[in-house]
Amino acid sequence: MQAVMIYGAKDLRLEQRPAGEPGPGEVLVRFGAGGICGSDMSYWTKGRVGDFAVREPMVLGHEISGTVERVTPGVTHVAPGDRVAIDPSRPCLSCDYCRSGRSHLCRHMRFFGSASVFPHVQGAFSETFVCRADQCHKVPDTVSLRKIALAEPLAVSLHAVRRAGEMLGKHVLITGAGPIGMLCAIAARRAGAATITITDLVDEPLALARAAGVDLAINVASEPDRLAAFEANKGHFDIGIEATGSVQALAGLIRVIRPGGRLVQLGMLPPGEVPIPVNLLMAREIDFVGAFRFAGEFTLAVDLLVNDRIDVGAVMSADMPVSKLEEAFALAIDRKRAIKVHLHF
Amino acid sequence: MQAVMIYGAKDLRLEQRPAGEPGPGEVLVRFGAGGICGSDMSYWTKGRVGDFAVREPMVLGHEISGTVERVTPGVTHVAPGDRVAIDPSRPCLSCDYCRSGRSHLCRHMRFFGSASVFPHVQGAFSETFVCRADQCHKVPDTVSLRKIALAEPLAVSLHAVRRAGEMLGKHVLITGAGPIGMLCAIAARRAGAATITITDLVDEPLALARAAGVDLAINVASEPDRLAAFEANKGHFDIGIEATGSVQALAGLIRVIRPGGRLVQLGMLPPGEVPIPVNLLMAREIDFVGAFRFAGEFTLAVDLLVNDRIDVGAVMSADMPVSKLEEAFALAIDRKRAIKVHLHF
Amino acid sequence: MQAVMIYGAKDLRLEQRPAGEPGPGEVLVRFGAGGICGSDMSYWTKGRVGDFAVREPMVLGHEISGTVERVTPGVTHVAPGDRVAIDPSRPCLSCDYCRSGRSHLCRHMRFFGSASVFPHVQGAFSETFVCRADQCHKVPDTVSLRKIALAEPLAVSLHAVRRAGEMLGKHVLITGAGPIGMLCAIAARRAGAATITITDLVDEPLALARAAGVDLAINVASEPDRLAAFEANKGHFDIGIEATGSVQALAGLIRVIRPGGRLVQLGMLPPGEVPIPVNLLMAREIDFVGAFRFAGEFTLAVDLLVNDRIDVGAVMSADMPVSKLEEAFALAIDRKRAIKVHLHF
Amino acid sequence: MQAVMIYGAKDLRLEQRPAGEPGPGEVLVRFGAGGICGSDMSYWTKGRVGDFAVREPMVLGHEISGTVERVTPGVTHVAPGDRVAIDPSRPCLSCDYCRSGRSHLCRHMRFFGSASVFPHVQGAFSETFVCRADQCHKVPDTVSLRKIALAEPLAVSLHAVRRAGEMLGKHVLITGAGPIGMLCAIAARRAGAATITITDLVDEPLALARAAGVDLAINVASEPDRLAAFEANKGHFDIGIEATGSVQALAGLIRVIRPGGRLVQLGMLPPGEVPIPVNLLMAREIDFVGAFRFAGEFTLAVDLLVNDRIDVGAVMSADMPVSKLEEAFALAIDRKRAIKVHLHF
Repeated sequence: MQAVMIYGAKDLRLEQRPAGEPGPGEVLVRFGAGGICGSDMSYWTKGRVGDFAVREPMVLGHEISGTVERVTPGVTHVAPGDRVAIDPSRPCLSCDYCRSGRSHLCRHMRFFGSASVFPHVQGAFSETFVCRADQCHKVPDTVSLRKIALAEPLAVSLHAVRRAGEMLGKHVLITGAGPIGMLCAIAARRAGAATITITDLVDEPLALARAAGVDLAINVASEPDRLAAFEANKGHFDIGIEATGSVQALAGLIRVIRPGGRLVQLGMLPPGEVPIPVNLLMAREIDFVGAFRFAGEFTLAVDLLVNDRIDVGAVMSADMPVSKLEEAFALAIDRKRAIKVHLHF
Repeated sequence: MQAVMIYGAKDLRLEQRPAGEPGPGEVLVRFGAGGICGSDMSYWTKGRVGDFAVREPMVLGHEISGTVERVTPGVTHVAPGDRVAIDPSRPCLSCDYCRSGRSHLCRHMRFFGSASVFPHVQGAFSETFVCRADQCHKVPDTVSLRKIALAEPLAVSLHAVRRAGEMLGKHVLITGAGPIGMLCAIAARRAGAATITITDLVDEPLALARAAGVDLAINVASEPDRLAAFEANKGHFDIGIEATGSVQALAGLIRVIRPGGRLVQLGMLPPGEVPIPVNLLMAREIDFVGAFRFAGEFTLAVDLLVNDRIDVGAVMSADMPVSKLEEAFALAIDRKRAIKVHLHF
Repeated sequence: MQAVMIYGAKDLRLEQRPAGEPGPGEVLVRFGAGGICGSDMSYWTKGRVGDFAVREPMVLGHEISGTVERVTPGVTHVAPGDRVAIDPSRPCLSCDYCRSGRSHLCRHMRFFGSASVFPHVQGAFSETFVCRADQCHKVPDTVSLRKIALAEPLAVSLHAVRRAGEMLGKHVLITGAGPIGMLCAIAARRAGAATITITDLVDEPLALARAAGVDLAINVASEPDRLAAFEANKGHFDIGIEATGSVQALAGLIRVIRPGGRLVQLGMLPPGEVPIPVNLLMAREIDFVGAFRFAGEFTLAVDLLVNDRIDVGAVMSADMPVSKLEEAFALAIDRKRAIKVHLHF
Repeated sequence: MQAVMIYGAKDLRLEQRPAGEPGPGEVLVRFGAGGICGSDMSYWTKGRVGDFAVREPMVLGHEISGTVERVTPGVTHVAPGDRVAIDPSRPCLSCDYCRSGRSHLCRHMRFFGSASVFPHVQGAFSETFVCRADQCHKVPDTVSLRKIALAEPLAVSLHAVRRAGEMLGKHVLITGAGPIGMLCAIAARRAGAATITITDLVDEPLALARAAGVDLAINVASEPDRLAAFEANKGHFDIGIEATGSVQALAGLIRVIRPGGRLVQLGMLPPGEVPIPVNLLMAREIDFVGAFRFAGEFTLAVDLLVNDRIDVGAVMSADMPVSKLEEAFALAIDRKRAIKVHLHF
């Protein structure tokens, strides 16, 4: 079978690999659609994501949908032919984190296509792949495989929105109009935010955000004073979600959150330490919390997508065959042309 | 009447000032005891606290108890002769913060002896002083005025402990064995912490902390590796309370909090930005929250002190007459000799 | 000036009364629109609401908007001519409940048009009325006075929705399609509920609820088995809001809430005790919580109405002159013909 | 091997049964000590607990400690000879409840010695028994097996205390001074309750509660007015924990909880519905929540016991050989003579 492999920076290959064989409790899934994530692009351009470098060839891919090909005895909740969204996280289910509802912090997490452990956990950009049965969430045949491949980034965004606390009537600022920032905006709107403001350095995604119903979209490169105006009177926004991984974005965000507000760090910043006005956070009692992956939000994401409770059309930019692999990655990384690009075999 | 005035760095004076006159809803209180706070010492040594410089002569003092001298018509909950703990905060009670239970973030706060607004809010280190009646918390005559003057720093510490979330069975690390750190330790113990570890650079307060029941007291100057050992396996402590205002202390603290833990910033750091490993906070989903002053915790502090629900003996170091003002401040600032020093007229 | 007075059961009068005179911190408001509440109807039909009987003539009315007529010195946030939503609650702002963000539980609450204290607190169905300045929420001149009079029942509903906890992705059942049940449905939708089911005994309001976007509207009189079907597998709904005050409705509701769910009692039941399957609540760990009036939700309600963040058209049935007082009350009580009826002078 | 079997009301037998054989992931444990629970007594006296009748012979017992006898391949966290506390709950770990941290509500729970499902889940009052390895919590050899058998009822009590919310500075009323009520009192004290009041109908356990540090112990049979006095001014207690299962106790408790308080139902009431003043709960916004078994609290209970963070001496009444089975049950049920009775083989 074919698989999308990363060997290091700028070394992405479409290769033949032997198909996996499902063990007890596992299933074999035929790839449906796969979204190219910012971390996939980072592996491609830099051979690393933050502190985690590619140290051995790794199949990329963790935003996946597919069709069940084969199940093992005892697996009952999915059957061959079922269309499924794939949760790329495989927590142990028995450590203290798993048992207290925070399986995304699992001590023994296996997360598809991630170099954070060694040997790396192989991803799922391959014609078929093996996963634990409970990673498969069955969806109706009427839902497109490409749309359902958005369940993973939507789950990430929903987790960030939940970490931000009550949304009803709140004024929310999201930095970054990439796929995650856009999905955060869509999720925050659904959760009742009063107004949603989004910032970016590029006009095109901001225009898409506006079209998707964001109240205010600011290009902080061309209009540097517009966000700063909200610093007056100790800040304006109740909630901030940092979805760029940019130190500058975070610095600007902190200063416009009002006392008692809540700030969610979702983007991965450059390695090491970053300068933070901690006294300001302290004196304003702004809660600064991280959001890392997701737990129960995957199920919620599938529900929202399957039942059309949200409209994610704005983030689906293109669907490309795996034969045009480099072209697809080049498109995905071009923020003027694409939000989210999907691959198919 | 006499009052303890700060004019600037190293310029502390005991001066005559006209006594205040209570207006509607106010009372006149005779000074009982007053604790010298870290911020008082900072005004004395540097003429400022963080970003707030002394710009006009100001009466110091916000850790106060006293005896009601005179009430105005309509004041019913205290009467002349009542022994009272004084809440130095005077929130407006009607802004959105006050109405949502976070009066410490009041948009119009008047806090005794603070240069954070101009004209400054005068403090209460004076033979008599005026306050709003609701700032007076009546206590039994059997409670010492000096002990009850601890209600304010205890309220600060209780607020930090509450911001830290559930304590029962938790492993808690407190950086700094000054009065606030010590009171945090005492409060965390009362709230059910499983173990309490405290760090400092000076042996004497650490010895007092040990005597007061802290499980582990580490001198991070002489034993630099001891705390770092807790960095293994992604950290050990469920909860951290930073009570020094030292960048180094904070840096060390962040790395030993385990995923899903909670970190409370209580100390005021040097002005400006400080370097923080935000990726680590994010990937571990450590909540980094500030604790600023207190709200309902003042009432709780009075209750704990009056009913002997906690033992604060360890922090009460000396009681000195205001005539020995500079000597008292010099003692208060000497961490080898004192935790908390009180003044009396 | 004219005022709508209740003297007892079936004794509602339009009478002349001297206009009030605003004291310090107060304002005089000219009546704009006033909604007839279920409690107003209960005073009219029974001379009482639950345990509270009318013991002296009382001006009715607490769902009010108006125009500021006169302010007293020191009042700055509103001025004559301002269009205002009126918060009928007048908490003391200084008791422990007020200071902890739960002013609706204020120990000294004065709530317009309520016989729960004696002497009764007079209401605001009168040509002009006096209130504390902070009861006035200024709105733009473009917002209709009738719509803004919905701020109070909307605040009640928002409070119930908040008491129900996180709404995003939840399945919600509301018993009762009266004005409060309808507004709860609208608020729950805005807060992100996945599905909303509503029950009633009358078809007409259920049809309106369907038109307003409720997912499932069940007439439990004509289709008694339809709700009971959700009892299977330990219940279906994550959240229940009881908005009828009917013992039968509550009994049916409890059995369809799933383990770990949350049940909000909003309706006032008949006086005394009602039979509850407490073991079932216990073994399923269903949180059974009350919702009583509102606190900060009034501000939120005004914001939602003024900025058209929700559509409340479905509940506004009729606007009648106070000269047709009895006719207006008769219409308001006819569930086949009206949800909410407003009065104007 | 011998086992304590219940066949029906008054039909308790010590019988020979074949020893179990551990399967994959399981271990064989030699019985150390076993506490007789209220539910065991109910099976003995009535052949049922609430709605659950004994329908086939069942080994009793779920408050157990022991020594690991044999492990299966792959089990690494315990080894033969280890002293262990046994968590009698065996949740599936994969349903939505398990994955959200509420495994006590698991859809497929297997709980030792419970007739709530059929075929019944066999208990552990037997010379040896089989359990899943993760049910074993290793403890030091210095901890007595009898003390560690208290982990289960302590976990039940800790869960109730956690469901009661923040304890620091709160006034707590517990109805029932049986083992669970006593352990709730001990846990609430550890969690920082300001005062603890306990009620019962029998003097002896009340005397023990007093000796264990409870602030006020009331015999509501002989002093019926004493608790009712707390009804004044809308109630006194912040938190109530109902630990008797008596309708009268619950009725008395509700009326003395103050507005905004929290009431935890822990005792199992008689089958069916019980009369509750729901309007009072609603108007006072008292949260009425159930506490059912426990989840992460078992680990916490073991930690508290092993590290002597609490003193449970007051509840350990007697340790009897299984040869005196009926005598042990008779003692356990005699509230004048015993709180908790343990069995050993």
